[in-house]
Amino acid sequence: MNEGLEAYNLANRLFPIYRSITGAGVRESLIIIKDYIGNNDFQIYEVKTGTRAFDWTVPREWKIRDAYIESEDGARYADFSKNCLHVVGYSKNVDEWIDYEELINHIFTQEDQEDAIPYVTSYYAERYGFCMSEKAKRKLKKGRYHVYIDSELFDGSLTYAELIIPGETEKEVLFSTYTCHPSMANDNCSGMALAAELAKYVTNMSQRHYTYRFVFIPETIGAIVYLSQNNRLEKLKKNFIAGYTLSCVGDNGDYSIINTIKTDSLSDRLLMNVLHFSEKTKGNYKKYSYLERGSDERQYNSPGVDLSVVGFCRTKYWEFPEYHTSLDTMNYISTDGLQGSFDVMKETIEALEYNYFYRMKIPCEPQLGKRGLYPEISQKATYDAIEAMINFIGYANGKLDLLDISNMIEQPIRVLIPIIKKLKDENLIIVEESL
Amino acid sequence: MNEGLEAYNLANRLFPIYRSITGAGVRESLIIIKDYIGNNDFQIYEVKTGTRAFDWTVPREWKIRDAYIESEDGARYADFSKNCLHVVGYSKNVDEWIDYEELINHIFTQEDQEDAIPYVTSYYAERYGFCMSEKAKRKLKKGRYHVYIDSELFDGSLTYAELIIPGETEKEVLFSTYTCHPSMANDNCSGMALAAELAKYVTNMSQRHYTYRFVFIPETIGAIVYLSQNNRLEKLKKNFIAGYTLSCVGDNGDYSIINTIKTDSLSDRLLMNVLHFSEKTKGNYKKYSYLERGSDERQYNSPGVDLSVVGFCRTKYWEFPEYHTSLDTMNYISTDGLQGSFDVMKETIEALEYNYFYRMKIPCEPQLGKRGLYPEISQKATYDAIEAMINFIGYANGKLDLLDISNMIEQPIRVLIPIIKKLKDENLIIVEESL
Amino acid sequence: MNEGLEAYNLANRLFPIYRSITGAGVRESLIIIKDYIGNNDFQIYEVKTGTRAFDWTVPREWKIRDAYIESEDGARYADFSKNCLHVVGYSKNVDEWIDYEELINHIFTQEDQEDAIPYVTSYYAERYGFCMSEKAKRKLKKGRYHVYIDSELFDGSLTYAELIIPGETEKEVLFSTYTCHPSMANDNCSGMALAAELAKYVTNMSQRHYTYRFVFIPETIGAIVYLSQNNRLEKLKKNFIAGYTLSCVGDNGDYSIINTIKTDSLSDRLLMNVLHFSEKTKGNYKKYSYLERGSDERQYNSPGVDLSVVGFCRTKYWEFPEYHTSLDTMNYISTDGLQGSFDVMKETIEALEYNYFYRMKIPCEPQLGKRGLYPEISQKATYDAIEAMINFIGYANGKLDLLDISNMIEQPIRVLIPIIKKLKDENLIIVEESL
Repeated sequence: MNEGLEAYNLANRLFPIYRSITGAGVRESLIIIKDYIGNNDFQIYEVKTGTRAFDWTVPREWKIRDAYIESEDGARYADFSKNCLHVVGYSKNVDEWIDYEELINHIFTQEDQEDAIPYVTSYYAERYGFCMSEKAKRKLKKGRYHVYIDSELFDGSLTYAELIIPGETEKEVLFSTYTCHPSMANDNCSGMALAAELAKYVTNMSQRHYTYRFVFIPETIGAIVYLSQNNRLEKLKKNFIAGYTLSCVGDNGDYSIINTIKTDSLSDRLLMNVLHFSEKTKGNYKKYSYLERGSDERQYNSPGVDLSVVGFCRTKYWEFPEYHTSLDTMNYISTDGLQGSFDVMKETIEALEYNYFYRMKIPCEPQLGKRGLYPEISQKATYDAIEAMINFIGYANGKLDLLDISNMIEQPIRVLIPIIKKLKDENLIIVEESL
Repeated sequence: MNEGLEAYNLANRLFPIYRSITGAGVRESLIIIKDYIGNNDFQIYEVKTGTRAFDWTVPREWKIRDAYIESEDGARYADFSKNCLHVVGYSKNVDEWIDYEELINHIFTQEDQEDAIPYVTSYYAERYGFCMSEKAKRKLKKGRYHVYIDSELFDGSLTYAELIIPGETEKEVLFSTYTCHPSMANDNCSGMALAAELAKYVTNMSQRHYTYRFVFIPETIGAIVYLSQNNRLEKLKKNFIAGYTLSCVGDNGDYSIINTIKTDSLSDRLLMNVLHFSEKTKGNYKKYSYLERGSDERQYNSPGVDLSVVGFCRTKYWEFPEYHTSLDTMNYISTDGLQGSFDVMKETIEALEYNYFYRMKIPCEPQLGKRGLYPEISQKATYDAIEAMINFIGYANGKLDLLDISNMIEQPIRVLIPIIKKLKDENLIIVEESL
Repeated sequence: MNEGLEAYNLANRLFPIYRSITGAGVRESLIIIKDYIGNNDFQIYEVKTGTRAFDWTVPREWKIRDAYIESEDGARYADFSKNCLHVVGYSKNVDEWIDYEELINHIFTQEDQEDAIPYVTSYYAERYGFCMSEKAKRKLKKGRYHVYIDSELFDGSLTYAELIIPGETEKEVLFSTYTCHPSMANDNCSGMALAAELAKYVTNMSQRHYTYRFVFIPETIGAIVYLSQNNRLEKLKKNFIAGYTLSCVGDNGDYSIINTIKTDSLSDRLLMNVLHFSEKTKGNYKKYSYLERGSDERQYNSPGVDLSVVGFCRTKYWEFPEYHTSLDTMNYISTDGLQGSFDVMKETIEALEYNYFYRMKIPCEPQLGKRGLYPEISQKATYDAIEAMINFIGYANGKLDLLDISNMIEQPIRVLIPIIKKLKDENLIIVEESL
């Protein structure tokens, strides 16, 4: 159980790399992740600037070398080399002296958090800008300032990665995370690290019924590009059975689910069952409506795509004050936080792999006593000890899948799996494909 | 926005006319209404006494000229010329001197409201009677009284009116109100006035997808006669999509809906959406089960008719103390009360006219930014400003009609209509018939 | 209304007979019951030891003549002749002197009820044992004891009984009770007595639409044997429409329903309607989930059997402290307790016999006035008196059965039956088979 620690270390490696929706930072991050997972099927793709992606077009690639504001006395502010959040993402090149009055039009702060540098981008409208803490901005005096951004927007490509780990069936499970955020730990070094950790886990599973697809993409534009290329939408529609977006999974807050638009898809049912019964959550978790979506579950569930992908977080994006600011550091996340998220996702995979329809072979209860599975002595309350098994048998009518049964008989799937194994060994049960 | 005032003035003209389920008062009222609406398709029908109407028969027509009780000293009580509620509706002719002891068998009062003259009828059992306030009745002394009712029951006809305003489709919406109540303002001069005002509004709509049918009938017997004549039941069953009975719509109480027997018909869904989101109601309204029905929604929803007509009131009939008494005067209703009812019904019509299934043309979200519909800068919470549009797009999957979407994304239809217009202009959306 | 007294007297005759899952006590009890019902179609069946029953085998028959523990001074403890619960059911033969230290391994007590002798069995693992009160056990001193059980396990048969009372249709209703418990009054002399009383009642019904099947079987093994013999499972699956297990029906506690696994089968709907509206319950009753099952509803509802049989009790088995102890005496049950259970089951049968789909013949309400069924005078609130009839008519659309209508219009079926009779007499209603 050192997945939390491993994931934390990986996040820590990814943290300092400056990423945006395109560019060198994403490429560097993906190579680290590929190396970490150690599965040679991990593929990195480049899609050229100008490529159509449904209603969208792949934007120009962006490169940033340096950025700062300099006062006449040579003091530097909003220095990119000190904190990469100081520059507005996709800022154009600039190198000129301007007045304070003009300067402040190019400065973004988070007014309600005066110590925080906000994370700001402007991908689709050409401008330049700097981000500072409200406190630092207030200290700027009237006068002339040198605004300097050494950046470049050019015809290049958008980079993403995909790892498909085949199982017994082509039916597949999607894990998707985004790679476009610069140095913020929970959002989304944690998501990338968890996805990598899960990919490693799935790679090493001794048996896999389902095929697992891991996707590392820039948010929104990346999801749209990903779905539009290589007939992926058609392929996914054909084989998709469940999916999760992973982001903000490293803190110690309550686990959160963002339900699909359908609210009760297999993705929803699996994760809600696990969150309800897991020893990690002890039944405490937060359930958000699809109206609260914001990450790539938004594209996956959209009309015409219709993939029922659930969002998974610890404290949900938007809900923690550190969100999208310089306060989202490696101190905000922890090995425990990541371990919890890993365990919940692992339980979700286990539940899925056992989620069949189960049907007892013979009418009436089997005689458990002759198999040593029933108390020999009958006295008040002796029945309690075998309640889970008796109830599983009573509900195994071939019309309910394991999730239904677990929910109806109020028993965690981890308790039911050994029961299923016993009943299989005794040749008492028929297992039917659930999908 | 002077519909409330106009409707009030119309109600005020109708108030003094003595109406019953048949007779001159109904005819006079219908001519005023026809004139008010100014639509030449308004048709007045006469159905002869004795005509079969399903299980019923059109009753004899009733004419009343005068009625009073006179004591030996010449004092008059329950004088019809002073308040037309003093006579029991459909009283037979009488002109004789009787003892006090017999007289009181013919007097009806409202014991729990000692100042009110109750509204009493006896259409189908021949008798005569007077209505007085409990206070006035108590003042009557022992002695001889002259009971005088100059009325007539004769083979004539039952009168009703219908206005059909055609739209692009034969699918139609029904508004029904009753014309048989004498001088009570809320019940039902208000209903007749609102129906007339809406008929005028619909007549003047620049575009109408649906056909609108306005029906002015005596309550119960009128609805039954109406449905049984001219194959109307078959025609309505074929084209009906929604309908409302209008009564007691002039006071300032909470808006009320009486649900259909189905509870979730289009009629129910439309009005509940409007009542939930309207600026008029601010979400406060009363929802009554079909078990609380009492007006013509009772016949429309009945087995074999099966038209899902909803009842609409401000304070529901039965629920205000003035109901069916002389206290239901023109002071009890107001221009504001009628304006509110008009606005709610108008919003209902608007919601219906936009109630299609909407489907986005292209997978994933469209790129709203390039169309100026998305914030250029992305920072925490910038998403809020476009929440309604993003959510509409996210739910426009061709499987939900506008009402579903409005309810699910918690946005009033009045907010969604301009969004739909923009998406249509951008050629991003497909509109599909909902019915 | 002396069914409660009669049932009590029958339970009192059955109480002293020593019963187990096989043997003379069951036979004697069934002969008394057959005689009591007085219906010659009552059949007693014997199924030989070793006969296969699905996954089970009919066990050896057990005979017990005497049992006690004797100390060296000749004092007797756990004397079967004083209370038959003193011996563990199906104890093997034993006749030897053992030390106190060994003796206590063979003694069962109910630690949380120190005056009670528990009811203990060990049908499928060969052993011997005695049951004593905790208090009595504590008084036993160290020393030698003579353990004596004069019992016999031999190839014999398992005994059960069935009574089929034919109706107009082969569709049938099942009442099932168990016969295997020794001298405990509520569990289950009360169940046997109620089943017998109901069988007598059904035998004497002047008209029966449905066929009624009464089954008297040992619990669990009896149900399994019963279903597996004579193609009964197939026959029941074909004709079964509703069923109830009867046990613990003699005390004065709240009425209880143990729902089927489906939760809304006809069996559930019928009994829940009756429990909700009965004058016996005044709406107070306890509703247990199928997870709380424990009697033969557990076999009837099991996968592959799938008969929606509901459990009926007063205070549910497991829920009263006297349960499965020597405290469950004839003083614990009463004539009133049994009368209440009888009345509820009788109401259930009546509701079922009237549970058709009803459809009004003519569109709109019929003219009730001309049939003397409507108030002649119309004034505020005159409608209240005929609410049940008007609502029944309004919901009699051919799509709702009587249970649906009763639940929707909130009127007990006993109120609706006379209304249905009137409407039938007036030829206003069509009655359609509900199943």
